[in-house]
Amino acid sequence: MPLTLATLPFEKEKDVVDSSRKILGIRLEKHTPLALERLLYRPRCPPVLRGAFTVHRASAPLKAIDDDKQISAMFPHVHHKPMVEIGFHDGEGPVTIGKPLRVGILFSGGPASGGHNVVAGLYDFLATRNVSSALFGFLGGPSGLIEGKYKDITEENLFRFRNQGGFHLLGSGRTKIETQEQLAAAFSTCERLNLDGLVIVGGDDSNTNACVLAEYIAKKRGKTCVIGVPKTIDGDLRNAYIEASFGFDTACKLYAELVSNLAFDAVSAQKVYHFCRLMGRSASHITLEVALQTHPNMAIISEEVAAHKQTLPMVVDMIADLVCERSALGKNHGVIILPEGLVEFMPDIKSLINELNEVLAQKASVNGTAADASSMGMAEEADEANALGDVDESVRVIREIARKLSKESADLLGALPPAFAVQLCMDRDPHGNVQVSKIESERLLAEMVEKELEKRKQEGTFRGKFSAVTHFLGYEGRCGLPSNFDCNYCYVLGIVAGGLIENGHTGYLARAIGLTQAPELWRVGGVPLTAMMRMERRKGHDTPVISKSVVDMAGPVFQTFKKDRQNWSLSDEFRIVGPMQFYGDGADALTFTMEISE
Amino acid sequence: MPLTLATLPFEKEKDVVDSSRKILGIRLEKHTPLALERLLYRPRCPPVLRGAFTVHRASAPLKAIDDDKQISAMFPHVHHKPMVEIGFHDGEGPVTIGKPLRVGILFSGGPASGGHNVVAGLYDFLATRNVSSALFGFLGGPSGLIEGKYKDITEENLFRFRNQGGFHLLGSGRTKIETQEQLAAAFSTCERLNLDGLVIVGGDDSNTNACVLAEYIAKKRGKTCVIGVPKTIDGDLRNAYIEASFGFDTACKLYAELVSNLAFDAVSAQKVYHFCRLMGRSASHITLEVALQTHPNMAIISEEVAAHKQTLPMVVDMIADLVCERSALGKNHGVIILPEGLVEFMPDIKSLINELNEVLAQKASVNGTAADASSMGMAEEADEANALGDVDESVRVIREIARKLSKESADLLGALPPAFAVQLCMDRDPHGNVQVSKIESERLLAEMVEKELEKRKQEGTFRGKFSAVTHFLGYEGRCGLPSNFDCNYCYVLGIVAGGLIENGHTGYLARAIGLTQAPELWRVGGVPLTAMMRMERRKGHDTPVISKSVVDMAGPVFQTFKKDRQNWSLSDEFRIVGPMQFYGDGADALTFTMEISE
Repeated sequence: MPLTLATLPFEKEKDVVDSSRKILGIRLEKHTPLALERLLYRPRCPPVLRGAFTVHRASAPLKAIDDDKQISAMFPHVHHKPMVEIGFHDGEGPVTIGKPLRVGILFSGGPASGGHNVVAGLYDFLATRNVSSALFGFLGGPSGLIEGKYKDITEENLFRFRNQGGFHLLGSGRTKIETQEQLAAAFSTCERLNLDGLVIVGGDDSNTNACVLAEYIAKKRGKTCVIGVPKTIDGDLRNAYIEASFGFDTACKLYAELVSNLAFDAVSAQKVYHFCRLMGRSASHITLEVALQTHPNMAIISEEVAAHKQTLPMVVDMIADLVCERSALGKNHGVIILPEGLVEFMPDIKSLINELNEVLAQKASVNGTAADASSMGMAEEADEANALGDVDESVRVIREIARKLSKESADLLGALPPAFAVQLCMDRDPHGNVQVSKIESERLLAEMVEKELEKRKQEGTFRGKFSAVTHFLGYEGRCGLPSNFDCNYCYVLGIVAGGLIENGHTGYLARAIGLTQAPELWRVGGVPLTAMMRMERRKGHDTPVISKSVVDMAGPVFQTFKKDRQNWSLSDEFRIVGPMQFYGDGADALTFTMEISE
Repeated sequence: MPLTLATLPFEKEKDVVDSSRKILGIRLEKHTPLALERLLYRPRCPPVLRGAFTVHRASAPLKAIDDDKQISAMFPHVHHKPMVEIGFHDGEGPVTIGKPLRVGILFSGGPASGGHNVVAGLYDFLATRNVSSALFGFLGGPSGLIEGKYKDITEENLFRFRNQGGFHLLGSGRTKIETQEQLAAAFSTCERLNLDGLVIVGGDDSNTNACVLAEYIAKKRGKTCVIGVPKTIDGDLRNAYIEASFGFDTACKLYAELVSNLAFDAVSAQKVYHFCRLMGRSASHITLEVALQTHPNMAIISEEVAAHKQTLPMVVDMIADLVCERSALGKNHGVIILPEGLVEFMPDIKSLINELNEVLAQKASVNGTAADASSMGMAEEADEANALGDVDESVRVIREIARKLSKESADLLGALPPAFAVQLCMDRDPHGNVQVSKIESERLLAEMVEKELEKRKQEGTFRGKFSAVTHFLGYEGRCGLPSNFDCNYCYVLGIVAGGLIENGHTGYLARAIGLTQAPELWRVGGVPLTAMMRMERRKGHDTPVISKSVVDMAGPVFQTFKKDRQNWSLSDEFRIVGPMQFYGDGADALTFTMEISE
């Protein structure tokens, strides 16, 4: 592992870059000044991570948050471990420093800003401990581990990714490590590379998989320690042990800027409503955070919709009411934000989807084989009509489907704008299920609100104008230049993951806590993955999962929002957010979600 | 006009804000630290604008760029004027300094970042010259002038808008000042308020209107001088006299950040193509600039499509070819950008739209009255079917429409994905015309490319995977926190507009040139609006217009793009853009469009 920069004192940063430009052959002329400046950012971290440290037990052995018995049975080798914390070496216990380590790392799932700094933190830790250490980056996500595809991480290929967004140093993927074949293949790669450790950077599912792999390896008496790192822009990997998943901070700051811009666009042009759908399928943390950042006229929170059993027509009415009320004040513009997963939280849509999934799985009576759900049934008919762009046929199939639904669901399907009815009936995933996540709920709502307002206009209860523009803010938030927070947090997590491996811990999630304080004050260590687990019914099986954290309606973040939202609905007191800065007063500001939760 | 901050030396900026917080009653706690910091930014400007200055003739009287005879006949009072330039007072000529002035200002058309600084520059100029001056802001765009709706601009209500995005200090609108009634009403407001000057902040059409109003007032021997300020994020108000319209810089920086993020998302997740439509209906400057900033795998330029007579199927083929070529290298992901107006530049779509407009205007034979184009004809049938969400009926109407088209156009309509065929036939503007601008061309292309690739897969010429995610980057770029450049440029233009009014010039566009140099070195003055005009056929009438500048395929910007784009198509050498910064190396960087054109 050739070392160049990791061992250099970074005092003369400009010199380093000037010589690195030649040494590393980076085509720096292709970089913006900002990207260059960020290359030179030195992540802040707790001093304990710089020198000799020990990893000590910090709690009694932990049970799973629920279903401890089942979890215990599934993870006999990695369950009931204590939390561990990294502290200055106190003279007792072994000093493991200096041991050359062989470690692998992979990205799992959608990208999130900061991922490269996990690699950088881990790399710097390994390189500082022993220059003979080796770091392997598995390519394209978990499949790289299964198939043994990797690259050696060196300062030479890592340097240009420091503090930069994206996962493209290694790529990512959504392959799971679940089946016995996959587990065996992954283990085989670990053995072949003689890995002391494997770091899996991912969300709740990927970390569950990490734990399954840790258990598998421990059972097989392999030496590879498996450590998870909490990643997800949705912010739903968050619990009593974990204060934040990385990527949320950067993503929210970008989304908030865009929503703020759209809010001022609305009030400047005074003629449209911007309907913005934001990422967050299982939880509404992003929408809630962006609401607090921007003060939109309305922010719909999925968890509240579910709690209040709000149906689609009820939500449409709620928006139409706001439009009417604002219109009476002469305001025919505004901004409304909603989370990606919204419609799935509505009880009527939920029923409709369940019924559709059943109907679509039904066989056509002429076909006898029950094994292949996709052949010759309603599903295929729908498919064929759709693929051929045969509108007549589509209409016929939808009507046939509607006849097999309950009256409530058939009525709901009939009330949907035609394009959405088509989409629900025609667009299915490889398992034949309705692709709820593809529903553009912001368009659905905008169209239905428009229809409702036309009705009200005819009834004389609405005299204004209504015009909507829809937006989905999603992918553009996953690979931005990481905020200072995400740079620091990820770098620290990378070092911590290295420290846990060095000390032989497996089945842990690397963590840092006290995150609202300066990074120098963060406490770092690991929490056993099983301690965050419970059993859940998935695809007909009881499965161990790390629960996603949803918005807590009794919690301080939602309560703050609830207290203020009425003021925002009519007054247009939007908050100017602006582009995320790396210098100046706001550069180290955290999200409200972090600050208020504290 | 109460003065507080304009007359204060800004040395102790923090003190000013702290006391202003109380004095001005700004709810600063609602502002982000960044918005506050930007409130304190002091726009840079040429020193000549700070002291006594004269406005001197800088050229011979200018002719219109074309059709000078007709332009001359239409604008006898404001045509054939010279360019003027602002210079240090040389002791000759009258010193007009100190005269109290009464000036109005309005925003016209879509918002663009920097507008508030035009007001601020104008305000500071007036306040510095004479505290008895008055500035009136017309509300909601030109209609505010016509209807006499305005507010007094004071430091108290202006302060919080300094260096901030949006047009919401006054609002904006798209009303034109065209008819005799509108002109008379506008003139009447000017007379009633006893205005020395009126500043119209707008694009090509708004500035044409400004000139019409200047002519009208001059003819009526009114005293109000009308001055235009070049605004448009599209960057198409640009010619031999005008180097830039404001808003382009900020908008491009935001779009470039987003496209860069999407590019890294593509290469990180390695499974989708991002198709991004960018603002720019008449010209592709934004797409071209963003291409230079980000290095996408493909950037489609409308002007080139028109020049090469590329039809929709040809463009679809071109994209499919790229996907195949990349797929052969193992890359099933990428980023493709295109301008809003793309389809309108394709010859086959143009013909289809022209034919559709004719067919839709046809009366049903049972209906005798020819006057009302919207009653009882094809158009209304289509409308009704659409409004009712009656899919069967829609299909019937589209088929009927298709029978009345030429074979080429009918084939093209038939080849479109059904939803787009419906949209083209059903969705019409108040004049009954096809709403081309509403066509989501990024979706259209993505769907057609998908279909083409399925065909190639069956033929065995494509073995990869293709999945597209579509984006429209538009409204979020119109109201961002203005870049340093847009802050400076707008502030300077505001002062210049004031200077031109002070010196009795009317029918001019305020300008600053030498913009790639430091603001202190810019040269400032005015160019007669008629000098940028020519006649164009619009809605059946010969109309004077300020020509939009389209991308010059022989020019250095396009040529730079052309030279590099082949490299970008396969190599994924995306450029990291990141969020616009207000401090540091890149904060004062200009667009490539500006730098390369120089």
